[in-house]
Amino acid sequence: MPDNFADRLLKAIRSKRAPACVGIDPIYSRLPAEISEHRDMNDENDAEVALDAVLEFSRRVIRIVAPYVPAVKINIAFFERYYWEGIEGYYELVQEAADRDLIVIGDCKRADIGSTSEMYARAHLADPDFGNLDDLVAPDAVTVNPYFGLDGVRPFIDVARDEGKGVFALVRTTNESAARIQDLPGADGMSFCESVAREVAAWAQDDGLVGTAGYSCVGAVVGAQDRDNALKLRAMMPNSIFLVPGYGAQGGTAEDVAACFKSDGTGAIVNASRSILYAYEDVRYLELYASEWEKCIEQACKDFVADLAKVIRVA
Amino acid sequence: MPDNFADRLLKAIRSKRAPACVGIDPIYSRLPAEISEHRDMNDENDAEVALDAVLEFSRRVIRIVAPYVPAVKINIAFFERYYWEGIEGYYELVQEAADRDLIVIGDCKRADIGSTSEMYARAHLADPDFGNLDDLVAPDAVTVNPYFGLDGVRPFIDVARDEGKGVFALVRTTNESAARIQDLPGADGMSFCESVAREVAAWAQDDGLVGTAGYSCVGAVVGAQDRDNALKLRAMMPNSIFLVPGYGAQGGTAEDVAACFKSDGTGAIVNASRSILYAYEDVRYLELYASEWEKCIEQACKDFVADLAKVIRVA
Repeated sequence: MPDNFADRLLKAIRSKRAPACVGIDPIYSRLPAEISEHRDMNDENDAEVALDAVLEFSRRVIRIVAPYVPAVKINIAFFERYYWEGIEGYYELVQEAADRDLIVIGDCKRADIGSTSEMYARAHLADPDFGNLDDLVAPDAVTVNPYFGLDGVRPFIDVARDEGKGVFALVRTTNESAARIQDLPGADGMSFCESVAREVAAWAQDDGLVGTAGYSCVGAVVGAQDRDNALKLRAMMPNSIFLVPGYGAQGGTAEDVAACFKSDGTGAIVNASRSILYAYEDVRYLELYASEWEKCIEQACKDFVADLAKVIRVA
Repeated sequence: MPDNFADRLLKAIRSKRAPACVGIDPIYSRLPAEISEHRDMNDENDAEVALDAVLEFSRRVIRIVAPYVPAVKINIAFFERYYWEGIEGYYELVQEAADRDLIVIGDCKRADIGSTSEMYARAHLADPDFGNLDDLVAPDAVTVNPYFGLDGVRPFIDVARDEGKGVFALVRTTNESAARIQDLPGADGMSFCESVAREVAAWAQDDGLVGTAGYSCVGAVVGAQDRDNALKLRAMMPNSIFLVPGYGAQGGTAEDVAACFKSDGTGAIVNASRSILYAYEDVRYLELYASEWEKCIEQACKDFVADLAKVIRVA
């Protein structure tokens, strides 16, 4: 049997002493001039040229952050935007990150009825079962949407159990209008996302999912914009590692995310995307490194890890 | 301005006199022998060979059903399963269906936070904005997941408004475990999916979305397994066309789906996937046509339309 994903992730967090993940969500129009300037003026009108630039930037970001963080989260939407060639590029980045011993989270947020989710689970999480693609590397974990309930998530969980992979189910997202759906009060006094958390907690405890450290390969995406809510969700899903979005560009601070961890410093991994990717747009880093965009990204990544270390002590 | 999607869909339904949609969700292992037999024994182990067979079958199904139904729903998961080449094949099928004047619904069920959903909306719904891809045809409408709330759906709605396209937000799905999420009772007495319906109804009424027939380009996916629930949702979303899954293989009958229509026979389009695609596995059709799989599919499609006609009179 392959090692449990939660055990693998915790080990990777310990080895870097950082419960931190960098999100790869690149937008062509914000790329550093060095990446885009040797391309044509009308790059953005040519999908191949734009995709090449986005992939080059992403590869370099992965290499810059690899010494500092245990994981990257690659959001497939930013590659899917370039159609099939973008998807091919996405898998190239998964390989790039895996080659640097990073845990790779494929942020695809898929779900459908069970027989369809089976297709998504094979494409996005399972090691390829085609002989001609046996070199292809799939992510270590994916995000999934819980709206269909267990049916829509089970194919992913089955792959996770069998192949030592992980699943992060959306519970509470960070976007503004999430409140109008996810915070709806239920008849039993629990908000809707708490009811989802209760479901996820049950899924996480199924046979063969919990690793030696007591965490399951079924985790949860929990934004930390509301400290009380995060504490409540933390208590409701004791076996789930939280993937915590919203740090940096979305306004979250290290203090905000602390509630997603247990008192022993385990239980969560915090993601920062835009605040790292576009650090060279940030006057704080520009003052230090002028147009050396890679140094800006490296420093932002180090600062991210250092900020977390002030509030979370990795065991 | 392009024509409103709801107006276009209603016109297409009238022209075929059938509020019916065929779902294209092909699985290699169930393809007719004629499609797979001239390929190697180990086809399923080769992604390209399997994908070729799946695409050939899908193209032929689209051609068979095109005279009888106004729309096809192509579920991208069944192509995404073949990685980037599968995605390329998916867009080829969109083109195939568009060439036959079918309304094409891309069943992708995407959503994320707004800035990310923008990427999905461009990839899956918008006409391509890259000069080198200006021949590429995108679907007329897509399905989206409502868990993020309006933020996650707005980029799709904006494309729909600007380009005469459509969005179907999941409200009540047909899978068994959906009940444990979507039917959760709320503090206000409404179930969770009714609260989602209330949101969708508000989205659908936004400026520039409602066509001349009173329907919006923002529709809803509503399974018809519970007649009372369907009637309630029908009343709650007066401006939304329902895309109704679950007919046939998932157990729904024409009587079940009737509650999704208004009394004038408008307001819904019913999807059947597996009961049409795999009609050649059904003893009823085998008895008529033996191994002539295309005739089985054609007859199943005609029967589907005729069954609906018994309970729904298209104006």
